[in-house]
Amino acid sequence: MSVFLEDEYKARVIRAQKGMAERGLGALLLTTEAEIRYFTGFLTRFWESPSRPWFLVVPSRGKPVAVIPSIGAALMGKTWLDDIRTWSSPDLTDDGVSLLRDCLQEVAGPGLIGMPMGRESTLRMPLTDYDLLEAELGTLSIVSDGGLTAELRAIKSEAEIACIREACAIAGRAFHRVPEIARPGVPLAQVFRRFQMLCLEEGADWVPYLAGGVGPLGYDDVISPASEAPLQAGDVLMLDTGLVRQGYFSDFDRNWAIGHAAPEALSAWRQLLEATEAARAIARPGTTASELYHAMHAIVGGGEAGRLGHGLGMQLTEGLSLIAADQTELRPGMVITLEPGITLPGGGIMVHEDVFAITEAGCDQLSPPAPPDLPVLA
Amino acid sequence: MSVFLEDEYKARVIRAQKGMAERGLGALLLTTEAEIRYFTGFLTRFWESPSRPWFLVVPSRGKPVAVIPSIGAALMGKTWLDDIRTWSSPDLTDDGVSLLRDCLQEVAGPGLIGMPMGRESTLRMPLTDYDLLEAELGTLSIVSDGGLTAELRAIKSEAEIACIREACAIAGRAFHRVPEIARPGVPLAQVFRRFQMLCLEEGADWVPYLAGGVGPLGYDDVISPASEAPLQAGDVLMLDTGLVRQGYFSDFDRNWAIGHAAPEALSAWRQLLEATEAARAIARPGTTASELYHAMHAIVGGGEAGRLGHGLGMQLTEGLSLIAADQTELRPGMVITLEPGITLPGGGIMVHEDVFAITEAGCDQLSPPAPPDLPVLA
Repeated sequence: MSVFLEDEYKARVIRAQKGMAERGLGALLLTTEAEIRYFTGFLTRFWESPSRPWFLVVPSRGKPVAVIPSIGAALMGKTWLDDIRTWSSPDLTDDGVSLLRDCLQEVAGPGLIGMPMGRESTLRMPLTDYDLLEAELGTLSIVSDGGLTAELRAIKSEAEIACIREACAIAGRAFHRVPEIARPGVPLAQVFRRFQMLCLEEGADWVPYLAGGVGPLGYDDVISPASEAPLQAGDVLMLDTGLVRQGYFSDFDRNWAIGHAAPEALSAWRQLLEATEAARAIARPGTTASELYHAMHAIVGGGEAGRLGHGLGMQLTEGLSLIAADQTELRPGMVITLEPGITLPGGGIMVHEDVFAITEAGCDQLSPPAPPDLPVLA
Repeated sequence: MSVFLEDEYKARVIRAQKGMAERGLGALLLTTEAEIRYFTGFLTRFWESPSRPWFLVVPSRGKPVAVIPSIGAALMGKTWLDDIRTWSSPDLTDDGVSLLRDCLQEVAGPGLIGMPMGRESTLRMPLTDYDLLEAELGTLSIVSDGGLTAELRAIKSEAEIACIREACAIAGRAFHRVPEIARPGVPLAQVFRRFQMLCLEEGADWVPYLAGGVGPLGYDDVISPASEAPLQAGDVLMLDTGLVRQGYFSDFDRNWAIGHAAPEALSAWRQLLEATEAARAIARPGTTASELYHAMHAIVGGGEAGRLGHGLGMQLTEGLSLIAADQTELRPGMVITLEPGITLPGGGIMVHEDVFAITEAGCDQLSPPAPPDLPVLA
């Protein structure tokens, strides 16, 4: 039922337990989708409902223990876990807190419980329940996991990279079919709907993310929902999708000229490809996120986004940021996007993005190659 | 650019400020998608990226202040807000914390800052940053908003109900077309993909949620992803979708017989409709969530899900729970689902779900009527 073999999850837990020992942690406590799935394989879209908290406890040895609403018992029972403790949630007086407390007191011994508390982390349980849990834990205390969970997730296995490669291939086939759905006169909102349909038809399990932009000299921003305004000859269209296959994301974009493009837009697009190539050429173990940023920044300047790429995997964006300040060194198994952005005369922007896995020797492009010339939709 | 007129957002803020005054709160601090959108109209799928925190401060008078990553400035600039403060995020040393601190100190005066901390709430910022913010706030302290934000969101305006009605109509048209995509021999995973395509084709902006189940005497659970196993004659198929139109959810399901259904499945399905009708008949202002639960429970018994319905709106599930313990009284403007579940001989379950808006006189069904007989796909 799980995406990977049991050995993959077992190895993740053993690596976590090694890191826990180094940090003096008696257990890890996780409340969020990607983290719980990482150690269990528990894959469901039910996280879309905010009504129930979910907990996973990784002890210092042995398998993780799930402390979850009974509605998830059947699905969690199909993972490699043995110890699944449930309550009927929502419970207005005790929504899993006492069950979780008992579990932590049983498996964590006297000591420290680590939780992800740093960059990109979320506390997916009510703060009042978190405070109550802390107060009831007695000699146990909750501390930051020191980035352990994020560090583990940053290095992907071959099986994970295969999932991301497949997701990127699906997105690539959908991008290739954009001429079927986009031409002058078609409203952008319709392009968005039809593009998501193409992603599904090509094999996406679901399409959690789609953004885009359109305009003659670039677009306003890259996070807006689509308007009903029709595409016009002379526009540049950008679509950026995060689709999911087997729980792993693709995240890259493509640009098109509607009928024809302004020389400034063509030139900007070529600079974006040049910047991507400059970073790709130095992307290998030991290169820093900062160095990738500078390689692109030297060609295209800064981006409105605040960064020129990021890690990805079980989440649309995760891990390192391609900014000047991020000194994270690339390591084999990391998966990153190179996402240079450029500002055009008039203030519009254009963005290009591709996905790469870091190998022992360099990097391997997971997104299908961008076309050599800006494709035209007529 | 926003879904509603400025007056709608203004009225929400004024209601919030009245509640803040009653609770002695000098400001509200919000970090989550639905809450920030509720007061601003800021609608984007970019929340899928966990890399950047977003903040909204609702002062005791005047418009809210957005404290957000610069990548969102252009889109937030299209809302009714005037005061938008940005930083280049991700910032590895100060990801908005000092900007937020300064804003709170400026607008909250000496006093209490309320945050949603109760049921269904999430802290969408790193705990280490939250602790840092608390430590730096000086004479200000952060407390629970006492459920204020959730209470406001629970009562929908006519404009909001119109959005939910439209989302439900789209889902209804997609359900009506299921005979085009599902028949004996088709893998469930393909039905899931094609059904999401139908939702998009019928007008969904995106499809954040789809679950379902299949089996001769009901299904195992209602939150699993689809398997590649083909539909077989004699199965019952259930699809449950949460699609989004203009930022508002539909959430209801439909069942079908594949070829034919076992008498036990037909009987269970009729009991589900009967239970839904029993609750619908008493759904009016003053009726409690508990009473709705008992009206259905008397017919179908308990459900694996732990509840027999819930509120919905900007989120797939939000607000009250149809469980014995929830004494929340229905009020005009609430939108709820009735979602009875029943266990069949052998342990499989079946679930039916419809959506209703509570009116002054009773309730108004937003999901199109279920068919009188279990439809057959052949």
